[in-house]
Amino acid sequence: MTTDCSDVQTPAVLIDEPRMRHNIHRMQSQTDALGVRFRPHVKTSKCVAVAERQREAGAQGITVSTLKEAEQFFDAGFHDILYAVSLAPNKVDRALALRRRGCRLQVVVDSMVAAQSLAGATQHDRQHPDVLLEVDVDQHRGGIDADSPQLLEIARFLHTQGLAPHGVMAHAGSSYACSTPADLQRVAEQERAQSVHAAQRLRSDGMPCPVVSVGSTPTALSANHLEGVTEVRAGVYVFFDLVMAGVGVCAVDDVALSVLTTVIGHQRERGWVIVDAGWMALSRDRGTQSQAADHGYGLVCTHGGAVIDGLVLSGANQEHGIVSCRNGALPAEDFATRFPIGSRLRVLPNHACATAAQHERYHVVQEGHVMATWPRFGGW
Amino acid sequence: MTTDCSDVQTPAVLIDEPRMRHNIHRMQSQTDALGVRFRPHVKTSKCVAVAERQREAGAQGITVSTLKEAEQFFDAGFHDILYAVSLAPNKVDRALALRRRGCRLQVVVDSMVAAQSLAGATQHDRQHPDVLLEVDVDQHRGGIDADSPQLLEIARFLHTQGLAPHGVMAHAGSSYACSTPADLQRVAEQERAQSVHAAQRLRSDGMPCPVVSVGSTPTALSANHLEGVTEVRAGVYVFFDLVMAGVGVCAVDDVALSVLTTVIGHQRERGWVIVDAGWMALSRDRGTQSQAADHGYGLVCTHGGAVIDGLVLSGANQEHGIVSCRNGALPAEDFATRFPIGSRLRVLPNHACATAAQHERYHVVQEGHVMATWPRFGGW
Repeated sequence: MTTDCSDVQTPAVLIDEPRMRHNIHRMQSQTDALGVRFRPHVKTSKCVAVAERQREAGAQGITVSTLKEAEQFFDAGFHDILYAVSLAPNKVDRALALRRRGCRLQVVVDSMVAAQSLAGATQHDRQHPDVLLEVDVDQHRGGIDADSPQLLEIARFLHTQGLAPHGVMAHAGSSYACSTPADLQRVAEQERAQSVHAAQRLRSDGMPCPVVSVGSTPTALSANHLEGVTEVRAGVYVFFDLVMAGVGVCAVDDVALSVLTTVIGHQRERGWVIVDAGWMALSRDRGTQSQAADHGYGLVCTHGGAVIDGLVLSGANQEHGIVSCRNGALPAEDFATRFPIGSRLRVLPNHACATAAQHERYHVVQEGHVMATWPRFGGW
Repeated sequence: MTTDCSDVQTPAVLIDEPRMRHNIHRMQSQTDALGVRFRPHVKTSKCVAVAERQREAGAQGITVSTLKEAEQFFDAGFHDILYAVSLAPNKVDRALALRRRGCRLQVVVDSMVAAQSLAGATQHDRQHPDVLLEVDVDQHRGGIDADSPQLLEIARFLHTQGLAPHGVMAHAGSSYACSTPADLQRVAEQERAQSVHAAQRLRSDGMPCPVVSVGSTPTALSANHLEGVTEVRAGVYVFFDLVMAGVGVCAVDDVALSVLTTVIGHQRERGWVIVDAGWMALSRDRGTQSQAADHGYGLVCTHGGAVIDGLVLSGANQEHGIVSCRNGALPAEDFATRFPIGSRLRVLPNHACATAAQHERYHVVQEGHVMATWPRFGGW
């Protein structure tokens, strides 16, 4: 049974199902063509139903950003899980508990201290997780330099402890700052080459290192080849967002996530439409602020999802959004008749991961009808 | 029974109980001295235990930003509730349902359309909510100009429908952009004077208008007198945050909300400490960006809560935070020994409302011990 979108209480977050399906198949086709496994990052959706669709399309395993995600998805039948954040000593027990329950959990370390803490915790335990070493390919956040002596030191230490590195992983987060195909291809090649180089150093040193895992949505969609890589990870591609459109790896019309909102007022002299979606519904993410096109808190669309030229969510309080027109494309004096109180709009977000995180469920829509509501979870 | 703070899984949000208590009593004393009722805005905490402490200190009624807050707090024994967002036509039924259950719900309108929709819905219903007219005192978002003909038109219309305005309300949101006592006092006086003026216009027109409700944390703490005002509303004061410290209405040491985090890595050459609190734990709020002191995603403190001079959360990914020193106050080469992997830090947030909203529960701490965990809710 479907319901009309007009019955949904606002604000609410919608998934445009045909767009999501298209995005899932696009990434799967891309990684298939590159000859690598695809392991989606479920931190974007935190939703079992979304991950099931990624798996049905051909994804193998999932990537998570928290142990809560690992636990929730394991309970939902996902057994091959990469926890892609350097494992803190205080999280080792929780990770091992998952492994003991039969989860094929892979963990990441990028320091001797983390390696030692993991080795200490697993020395009397036959069920230890597979370990990947994080490689720093772009000085973006964590990881070990592919050429550093530390890489081999940590790998050898793990090897002596019976925790031989299962592989290397890298995330070229700097790709989010790109805006041209040439830059994207350069960062993708850098991510690939340095990861493969790190793996080869380990292999030359006598360690098997079967896995070379790389990825971000921009690099996954920009790589010309992935020689030496075994798997790709990406998350935000499943919904896309305005930041990804600014980077150039999707069109605005590919964005599958939007916030449904109701007009609650006007300030005619200022050319404002006030809506009931503020930063609580959109998040405080202003990711397009540093891009060529700054979309405020989001691009405003009709109830049906068509972008309204020039209309942006220019301001956001907790439960109030201010819609205004940035280029004079629309006469502000018509706003009250064109967007009357009680009418509805959709807002495309800057950053799908951050916007989705503000909500407890998705309304899955197709041609204006709500086909399903899917729960998502938060917390750690 | 209390537990040691070290047992808390990170990231987690903490309430420093003595600081919160101090903040609650400071605001209550201030409004008592000004001779007005105080109606706290519970959108900041969304936590019954916090609101109970505000009530015990003398608060009368609560303010909410969503009907879900109204429902949750009504179920928890709060019966006098002001829903301070202009009532959308599609939310009237839900508001009336609360009223029928015995909730003394007050709603806000700032347009003829909203007034008409409310009147239409209540014409066969003896249980209608009290209506306040929102006055625009600083061109910040919604509201009707205190001098405009519309104010009287809407009030008269409501009067003919048996919905005589119960009062006026205003929120001087522009006070958040102030940074001097003189500016704060000016905005506070503007909020007071225009609200009282609007109420007097209604009274001169023969309507009783018993309530004049004003407030924001900065204006509430800066007003010299509130002649003609009957109640004050404020929310973020209960925790305070770095934005409020930048505005000048609290000290950094008054901030009662912090995010507990664990060190998970270092990038020695870049002078970075990587922690497990990213934007998911802190929110994307960069409210201090436009203030004199930009604190990145937050000020970093010791595990016990003492600010570490110069250390800020300078970058945030979803589950990674980057801590760095902005003024050379600390030698970066000491970071690995001073903040070893596995050690803990606290981060004071830019915006308490936004940071708290990223969490499902508070850990209430006093001198390093967790005295309680209090649930909070989200959603609409």
